[in-house]
Formats: sequence, C-alpha cells, structure tokens
Amino acid sequence: MQLGMVGLGRMGANMVRRLMKAGHTCVVYDTNPDSVAELVADGAVGASTLEEFVSKLEAPKAAWVMIPAAITDKVIGQLAELMDKGDIIIDGGNSYFRDDRRRAKELEPKGIHYIDCGTSGGVWGLERGYCLMIGGEDGPVQHLDPIFATIAPGEGDIDKTPGRPDGKGTAQKGYLHCGKAGAGHFVKMVHNGIEYGIMAAYAEGLDILKNANCDTRAQEVDAETAPSMHGDLDYDLDLGEISEVWRRGSVIASWLLDLTAASFVGDPKLEKFAGRVSDSGEGRWTIEAAIDSATPASVLTSALYSRFRSREEHAFADKVCSAMRYQFGGHLEKTGITPMA
Amino acid sequence: MQLGMVGLGRMGANMVRRLMKAGHTCVVYDTNPDSVAELVADGAVGASTLEEFVSKLEAPKAAWVMIPAAITDKVIGQLAELMDKGDIIIDGGNSYFRDDRRRAKELEPKGIHYIDCGTSGGVWGLERGYCLMIGGEDGPVQHLDPIFATIAPGEGDIDKTPGRPDGKGTAQKGYLHCGKAGAGHFVKMVHNGIEYGIMAAYAEGLDILKNANCDTRAQEVDAETAPSMHGDLDYDLDLGEISEVWRRGSVIASWLLDLTAASFVGDPKLEKFAGRVSDSGEGRWTIEAAIDSATPASVLTSALYSRFRSREEHAFADKVCSAMRYQFGGHLEKTGITPMA
Amino acid sequence: MQLGMVGLGRMGANMVRRLMKAGHTCVVYDTNPDSVAELVADGAVGASTLEEFVSKLEAPKAAWVMIPAAITDKVIGQLAELMDKGDIIIDGGNSYFRDDRRRAKELEPKGIHYIDCGTSGGVWGLERGYCLMIGGEDGPVQHLDPIFATIAPGEGDIDKTPGRPDGKGTAQKGYLHCGKAGAGHFVKMVHNGIEYGIMAAYAEGLDILKNANCDTRAQEVDAETAPSMHGDLDYDLDLGEISEVWRRGSVIASWLLDLTAASFVGDPKLEKFAGRVSDSGEGRWTIEAAIDSATPASVLTSALYSRFRSREEHAFADKVCSAMRYQFGGHLEKTGITPMA
Amino acid sequence: MQLGMVGLGRMGANMVRRLMKAGHTCVVYDTNPDSVAELVADGAVGASTLEEFVSKLEAPKAAWVMIPAAITDKVIGQLAELMDKGDIIIDGGNSYFRDDRRRAKELEPKGIHYIDCGTSGGVWGLERGYCLMIGGEDGPVQHLDPIFATIAPGEGDIDKTPGRPDGKGTAQKGYLHCGKAGAGHFVKMVHNGIEYGIMAAYAEGLDILKNANCDTRAQEVDAETAPSMHGDLDYDLDLGEISEVWRRGSVIASWLLDLTAASFVGDPKLEKFAGRVSDSGEGRWTIEAAIDSATPASVLTSALYSRFRSREEHAFADKVCSAMRYQFGGHLEKTGITPMA
Repeated sequence: MQLGMVGLGRMGANMVRRLMKAGHTCVVYDTNPDSVAELVADGAVGASTLEEFVSKLEAPKAAWVMIPAAITDKVIGQLAELMDKGDIIIDGGNSYFRDDRRRAKELEPKGIHYIDCGTSGGVWGLERGYCLMIGGEDGPVQHLDPIFATIAPGEGDIDKTPGRPDGKGTAQKGYLHCGKAGAGHFVKMVHNGIEYGIMAAYAEGLDILKNANCDTRAQEVDAETAPSMHGDLDYDLDLGEISEVWRRGSVIASWLLDLTAASFVGDPKLEKFAGRVSDSGEGRWTIEAAIDSATPASVLTSALYSRFRSREEHAFADKVCSAMRYQFGGHLEKTGITPMA
Repeated sequence: MQLGMVGLGRMGANMVRRLMKAGHTCVVYDTNPDSVAELVADGAVGASTLEEFVSKLEAPKAAWVMIPAAITDKVIGQLAELMDKGDIIIDGGNSYFRDDRRRAKELEPKGIHYIDCGTSGGVWGLERGYCLMIGGEDGPVQHLDPIFATIAPGEGDIDKTPGRPDGKGTAQKGYLHCGKAGAGHFVKMVHNGIEYGIMAAYAEGLDILKNANCDTRAQEVDAETAPSMHGDLDYDLDLGEISEVWRRGSVIASWLLDLTAASFVGDPKLEKFAGRVSDSGEGRWTIEAAIDSATPASVLTSALYSRFRSREEHAFADKVCSAMRYQFGGHLEKTGITPMA
Repeated sequence: MQLGMVGLGRMGANMVRRLMKAGHTCVVYDTNPDSVAELVADGAVGASTLEEFVSKLEAPKAAWVMIPAAITDKVIGQLAELMDKGDIIIDGGNSYFRDDRRRAKELEPKGIHYIDCGTSGGVWGLERGYCLMIGGEDGPVQHLDPIFATIAPGEGDIDKTPGRPDGKGTAQKGYLHCGKAGAGHFVKMVHNGIEYGIMAAYAEGLDILKNANCDTRAQEVDAETAPSMHGDLDYDLDLGEISEVWRRGSVIASWLLDLTAASFVGDPKLEKFAGRVSDSGEGRWTIEAAIDSATPASVLTSALYSRFRSREEHAFADKVCSAMRYQFGGHLEKTGITPMA
Repeated sequence: MQLGMVGLGRMGANMVRRLMKAGHTCVVYDTNPDSVAELVADGAVGASTLEEFVSKLEAPKAAWVMIPAAITDKVIGQLAELMDKGDIIIDGGNSYFRDDRRRAKELEPKGIHYIDCGTSGGVWGLERGYCLMIGGEDGPVQHLDPIFATIAPGEGDIDKTPGRPDGKGTAQKGYLHCGKAGAGHFVKMVHNGIEYGIMAAYAEGLDILKNANCDTRAQEVDAETAPSMHGDLDYDLDLGEISEVWRRGSVIASWLLDLTAASFVGDPKLEKFAGRVSDSGEGRWTIEAAIDSATPASVLTSALYSRFRSREEHAFADKVCSAMRYQFGGHLEKTGITPMA
C-alpha cells in the first residue's frame, strides 16, 4: 500500500523505514532536502514541494503528517488545498484533541477525511514498533489498516493477556481505533499523563533511596532547622544496582524501569543531567480534562507540577512564604542551599 | 543446600517449592499442620513444633521466616532461644526496617546473624521467581547465595541493560545485597511506595478516560455546580482495549499494565470491586522516610492518601468544608452523590 | 448617584440596600416580581421588564448584573440591545475572565463599556461590605467610584497596614481597579482558589485532630491492614474549643476560622453535614491558569480534588487499584468501610 | 503569682514582660547574662545559675522552659534534679508530643508535674497576647490559671462566636487545656501544619497572579516546550494592592494576609527574599500523625513538600526524569532556567 509522509524527523523517518521494510511504498516530503534525500536512498519516492508530494500520491491519497504541533495547522491547511474528496490526512503528532475535532469539522465540507493518530514509542519505535491510538471515521481507518498494522509492533513475544479471546480486535497487535475524531489523541494525551506519573513515582522513590544516608551528613542545630526525627538514616545505596534488580520478578518491572537502569550505567549519580524537565503539552491537557470531568488526579498533577518546579530556581510562592515568616516570627532565611542533590 | 522455612502461606510455600525444584532440601513448619503436610507430600521435611523444626536443621542453621509482620518478633524470639552462635535467621516478610536494625542488634550478643530480605513477586513468584532485596552482614549473605539465586528469577529472557558489564554483581539475576541490617527492607519499602505511585498513575489515567463522556450526562444548572468548561467530552472509550494496546510499543508498558489489561477481561467495568484499597505499611513508612530526609515525594504521598480516602465514605474534612460554606454563603449541600463511578 | 441592578438574589438585593442606605438611588429588576416588590418597599425604583428597567436609568446608564453565570451572557445581550453609546454594564457575578474579555470586545463597537467586578463577602456583605475586584477601562471605573466605595467595606476598624502611605489608592477601602477587562474576575477567581486552599487546610488539620484517638479504636490484625506505627494516639480533643482558642492570638486567626468556630456551636460533630462539597468554577479556572502559566499550585489543586472526591462514593481509580492488587497478590477487598468519620 | 522562666529569647522575654505588666512576679534565667540583666532592669528577679533560679522559686515551684527543642530535654533533666514533689515544669517550646508523654512519665515517680504548652503568636505576642494550647494533669493546669490567663490575649475586641454560651471555658480568652500530657503540643503541632497550608495557599495564589502576564513574555517554539494553551494571559497585577484589598470584606481575610500585605509595602517584588523556606518540625510531625491515623492530608503535605523543594536547586528526582526522557526520546535538557521568578 502507498502512504505519503510529511515531516522526516526521527519519528517520521523511522516510520517510513518500517513501512518500506514491510513492502509498502512511501512518498516523502520535508522542508529539509537532506532528510528527503536520505530516505530516497533507502527506497522512498521523494518530493521537493508539497505540490509535488501530493501529485505523487495515488487516489484515495493518504498523507501522514509528523511535524511539530506549532505548524501542524498550517501544513494541514496547505495539504487540504491540494487534496480531493475521499483523500485522507493523518496527524501522527501530539495535537490537542480539540484541534482534531475542529480540523475534522473544517475538512468535512471538502470530503477530506481526517484521522488523528497518537503515536508512542520514541526513538525505539523503528525496532519495537509504535503503539498507535487512532481517532476518526470507520471507513478511512479501516482503509489504512495495513499501514497501521505495519507501523505497530504486532503481537511480538509479549505474553497474551490471560482470558482474552483470540482474534479480538487489533489492540493486541499494538494499534486501536479508539473512537471518533480526537479520540486517538485524547487517549495518547492520557497515556502521556500516566507516563509523567510513572516517571515521577520512580524518580521520587530513587530520590528517597539516595537520601537514605541523610543522617550521616552534618545537620545544623538551630530553631530554623527541623530536627531529624530518628537520626538513623545511614544507608549508602547503589541506585543503579537497585534499578537493575527490580527489573526481574518485582511488581514494578516496566520499560521505563529498563531505561532507568540503563541511565545509571556509566553515570551512577546522573551527573549528565541538571534536572530541568520539560513538558510538551499532553500532561497539561490531561489535567485540564481531569478538571473538566471532575476526576481527582492528584498523582498525575503532582508529576506535572514537579516538572514545572524543576525549571525554576525559586518559585515566587516560596518568597511569599519567606516574607510571611519574617513578618510573624522575625525568621531570616538561611543563606545556603541545603546540599541535598 | 538446606533451608528451613517458618510460615507456609502462599509466599512461603511457593518459595519452598521453587527451592526443592532446584534440588535444595527444605525443612518446613507452620502452625497449620495441613500446610506442613502438603509440602511434605511435595518432598519437604516437616516439623510439628518449632523445636522439632530447629532440631532438623544442620549447622549453620538457616531459618527463613515468612509470616505476618504482627507476629514476626515473637517467632524470631522463639527461634533465637533454640538456635546457636553462627546460625542465621532471615526475615522475608514486610518488616519495618527499624525493627530489622533492632533485631540484628538484639541477636548480635548471641552470635546469631540476622538477614532482612524484602521479597517482591506476589502470587506469580513460583513461576517468575521473586525479586530479593537483602540486608545484613556480608558473611551470612554470601553463605546463602545459592538459596537467594534459586528463589530469584535469574536473568531469564529479559534484555540485558545496554552497557552493563557482564558478570557484574547479582542484580541482573534478580537479587541484591543492598547493605547492612535493614537495608533490604528499606529498599523493599521504597519499592512498594513506588508501586503505589505507579498503580495510582494508571488508575487516575483510566478514570479520566472513563469520564471522557461526562458531557453526555445531564448536568445540573445551579450556583452550586461548576459549569462544564468546554462541553465536548463525549467519548465512550473501551478501557480494556486501551490497556491492551498500551502493552505493545508504548512508553508505559509494564507488568502492572499487563495485570490491568487482564483485570478488564470479563469485567469491563471492574464491577467485582468496590474500590476500597488497603495499604499494608510500606507506603506509610516510605513517606515517613521522605519526610525524615526532607525529600519531596508528592506523587507517592498522593497515592497513599488516595488509598486512605478510598476507605472512607466521607472524610470529616469534607464536613468541615461544607460547614464553612454554609456559614459564609448559606450554601446547602447537594443531596445526591454525583453518579461518576 | 443612580445604579440599576438586574438580579435580586441574596447578593444583589443586599447590595441595593447598602447603596440606598448611603443615599444612592437604585432601579431594580428581577424575573421574580416579589423580589422587586420587596426592594421597592425599601425605597428602590422597580421595573417589571428589562425594557422598563433600562428606560428608568439616566444617561450614562449603569446596569449592574448579579445573576447566575449560566444566563449572564443572555441578559447582557438583551441589555446591550436596549442601551446606548457611553452606557455601562457591570457584571458582578462569578464569570470566567475569558468571557469578560470576549464581552468587552463585543460591546466595544456599540460604545458600551463593560466592567467585570468580582465580589466577595457572601451573606455577610450587607453588614460587612463587599470586597470588590474590578476590571475594565479607566473612565467608566472612575465614573462609578461612588458606587464601588459604598458597596465596599471602607477602612472600618481594620488596622492600617504598617508602612502603607496614607491616601494610597482605594485598596484599603476594600475595592480595587485591578486592570483591563477580565482582570477583576481573574483576581476574584484566584481569591476563590485561595479560599478553597485555606478551607482545606483547616479541614485537614481538624480531621487529624479528630482522629487523634485512632489508637483507642480496635484495629484489625491481618496482612491487609497497616499496623499502627506508634499505637499511642489516644487523645479525645474538643474541636469546637480548639477552633475557638485559635481565634485569639494564634498565627492562623482568620475570618474563615471564626466561621469554623461558629459551626461547632450546637453541632460539635458537624452531623448536619454529609460532606459533599460543591465547587462553582473559580477553583477549576484557577488551576487552569496555574497550568497555563506553568505555576506549580499543589495546595490549591489538592483542595479542589478533595472537593471532587467528596462527592463520589468510590472513584473508579480506586477500583482499578483494587483490581491490580487482586491480580498480583490475590488481595481481596475488605468488605467494611473503616469507620473513620 | 510567681513564675520562673528559663530561656529569655524573644518569646520568653516578652512573656515575662507581659506577666510583670499584669502584676505577677518573675524569676528569670538564661545562659546569656545580658538577657537576664535586661529583664532585671524591667523588674524581674534574676538568677545566674539554674540552682539559684530554682532556689528563688516559692513552693510549689513553677518553672516555664522556653528554649530550643534540641536542648529542652537536658534542661528539664537538670531542673528535675533541683525540684521537689509537687513542683511544676512547663515546656512552652515546640516539643514533639511524644517527648512530652515520655517526660511526664519520667517525672511522675518524683512527683513533679509536667505541663506542655504550645504557644503561638510570634514576635507579636507581647502586644497581642499568646494563644496557649495546654496539655497535662488537671490540678497543676488549674493552679497556673492566672499565669495562662495573663499570657493569653483575653477576649479583647474580637467578636464573640455567635451562639457560644457566655462563660463557657477559657477558649474565648485565648487559652485551652486540651487534654493530658502531649495534648497541648499535639494541638500546636496541627496548628502549625495548618499554618503551613494557609501560607502556601496565599503563596500559590499570589504566584498565579504574578504569572498572569506570562503570555507577554517571549516563548520558545520547539518540541520541548508546551505551547501556551490560550495565549491571552497578559495582566500585570499589583500584588501589594490586591493583598490589601482582600483584607476588607473578603472571605480570605486573616492575620496572615495582614502580614502578607505588609510584606509588599516597600518591597513589591519581595526582592529581600530568595525563597528558601525553613521548616521547624511541627509540619513533619503533623504529616506523621496524618499517616499514623490514615487521615488524607494532601494540602498540608503539599505545603510541607513545597518548603523542602524551596531549599534545593534541583531535586535528584528531576534528574531521574531527565535521564528517562533522554533514554526514550533522545530529549536533551534545555540549558536555561525559565525566568519565572
């Protein structure tokens, strides 16, 4: 089957390679001609303009867009100008699900089908396959089934879920039509919200383990410093070995733990990292959806706030607390940062 | 090698079976004679009293205790009376690490070695092996290495961590000597704290997905009800299929997700469960350690509090808020519970 | 000065009374003729239709709208049809600040000025005065200064803030022009977010005090129940007397604490309340603004989530956790609710 | 009545002054002779050793100890050596309530009564009076009633709680016998826990107001940065004036808000403060009590964690998250700190 790909970054390029390896043909376009040339060398059909790209697609044309969220609307608008009734645009990036709903509605009068496809897998997808969460109309989604089936990991060597009937749907192959427009990115958004939560759970646990020797560090004795409650935290623990041992047989084994264990190899104190953690939107939208639906989501929100906090040296809120303490108790701030990390 | 096992519940009995399958010999004791008889039928040496149990162990005697935390101290005391200098007691349960420190110190004058061994794996351990986190002196821990190596999962078919030197330590076989007395249970405690956090991350995310149709439910229009912010949450999502698809290729694949997917098979609304979530101590101690060491642990704490909250119909704190609202705004409580779950 | 008031609920009617007591004249309208009649009896000019209401206002006409958020847009639209260039509409309700921005823009071509006025004070405002947070253009806000000054509490007997220059602005009289359109409701929104946080702080603290006798209640001994960590929480505390004592000289004295102390009079266990705590939008929008601006707001968010949680018997998230525990450990849920509240 | 005071820091010295102003006589001791001399000049009886101090007290001797928690045990031990059956020691500092329980038990065989007295009021107590939360046996507490009544604020000009019977107890005078040994410090501990929560509520709210102009700051456009959700946060708000206006008529008026408003006078950006917020133990013990009694306390815990976080430049947890993101997505950390504060 043929698929067009706009956007040949790490994700887009690897998806094209995965498709071609399985015998599909791909037409590719990127604003960077080198990225196009590289994939042409691997067997893709290249295009140097969006017009040329669309002209090389066979009807019903299917264009997969894999570009930064900030320019997605513009490119989809340009594609829509060039495409016809019955053609399909797939947004495989990390769009806000309300943008999907709007786009699907905007494209409807022209008869162009819009599919939103949340894509998980990061840099590992070429090898592992990508987990796909799809939203849109039944017809076009079914039409593209061979494409989704190839990009997804398939059943692989992952154990069958006990009791699950054979041949039920596509989820056990790693892709799922979740619902109408926006449903794919909605599920992907929550996936990322959960991801933040799980990452923070490991991170906080490892931080506690790291500080398990806090009572061996000298503590200041003054009215501004909470006394140690027990005074016996004197364990020097090897976080890398602990991450490794948890990978086998423990309840908290996971792919993210595998990556954590890998991080400690050669960098046991994670000195390569300062600790500024970005967030790319989905975590925020997840909390917005939680609030919209009155769903308490303390863990996911805490994880998001930890990322916000990691990027500030001092929050203004902290200054307000210091100012109040000065006012009611004459407390002066301690000048040094506690050397915890 | 020979090991004595006191406590033949699900965990203890399965560990004995795993040891015997690998050629070790086991002396077993439980207050329930049927449990003893069952394992004797499988090849173990049975004992009907603790005295008989100890007498059947060869020096240096090694007794593994696998019993509820509430009676661990008593049984260890009785064992210590019957054992001699150089013998070893292993507590494989979920003890508080400060109890380990105390016991190690209490047993030291008698020359009895105390080992604390955090054990993860649940009902799946017989087949998968148990992840072991061990604390205590070097000598006795090394002496028992064949036992630990057998109970643990071994390397199995889990991918090697990239860059990890071959033959480094035992962690990649699923067991680890973490440090001195208490270190094993300390690491296991944090493991459980992380477990609570990860479970809550999935749980909250799935709750948001479940409520993604909240705007299709009638909403009351009055000053006591927050208006829907967008009014477009109208997705009916299949949580079982979503859990299944995330198992393949997604960033949040994990063993706990495998279990979650299994939970939805045959019970898509989890109607078998009311939602009262117990906690068994480790989560609380993890937060205590976080506070002791001034480590912010918002995610792990939120997960623990969600469990507390799940067991109350209404917190008194909620009544206080209702009372204040009545006082300042004349707000009366709405009589029905919002039918969210 | 003359002011028109649309909406004669508790808040609107009391503001009219406060204005008339100070010598202002008020034209009043409500869909309920009895509410109009009551205020006419108190000296107001009544109107039985919106048309009549507007016709009785003198140019530049000023109409204050004090109605539920859900119908505010409709009524403002009707008023705008009847009003002229230079007239002023004030929304004193709890509108979303983005609605203010939109309305101000919509009314601009007609030359009608829009003012948003966040109003705090609840049922106590008639006597105490209302704290006013105002957004909109300078001209119309200054024009209405006599109205704002009367509705607000004035300096009263509240201590002057040390160091504050005499005669600086209006804030020390209880009203403030915060900025352009929407700024008033934005500040009021955050005010309510803080209100939720403070209420929850007292509520949680009192809940801990209430449970200070937890170790005098029988505890189950099984593997599903966390053991008491210290076993010595045996205080029976009088929450009403404690709330009362904190009102004098303590750091946490506040008006909300005054109300809390009042709540315990005659109802020491708050048995009049079930504990279902509504939220009316501002708390949610506050968190939305926090997320939009990457400001960590854990306390305010936790307070909001506690309200969500108070209205559910069991969150679906709790069921997911129970299901996982059953899968990995064979843990069955405990059937009784822990009798904590 | 006579009272002995050990420890003449800000709190102890001011309490002595307040007592003498009301006609009580005070014997005073401090390791710093200047502190003693100052109060002797004001009319107190001075002592240059603890022995002399005790010898100057009349039976039943009453010694109030107002010193840092770290040395309280030592000084109480020394006093106990010098005192007799029927004498009273009052600990007015911020002791852990379990230390009170232990001390009361240790002093019991000697017939010395131990009273724990939580004291709130900070540097303002001399003028306002101190809120007292008292634990211990009935007899000695009643014996000292004239002392407590003088140190406390009395009814003052604070409104009577509506419905509260006249002459009920002492709470409306600002002191309360809360229960047996430790009850006073337990209630004070929770008071401080609430204090942290309220402070954080104001602090977070003000932080959101401060960042209400975030969309006027340039935002980077890349895959590592969450896009602004609405793009319209362009309010420049005056936090000092807002704090001031909330003091009058709003629901969130409080003494802490008064102090906040004062903080902004002359320092509108709180540039005097870096934002390192100490904690002095009570907040930690409050959370420990919450966990011990399975009381969810998300707001109070979040406030404590914010303090922990304010003292770290980067938490190790943040580095773990960065490391995972690098592993799965090749995400590099952004090098600059977002200039939010």
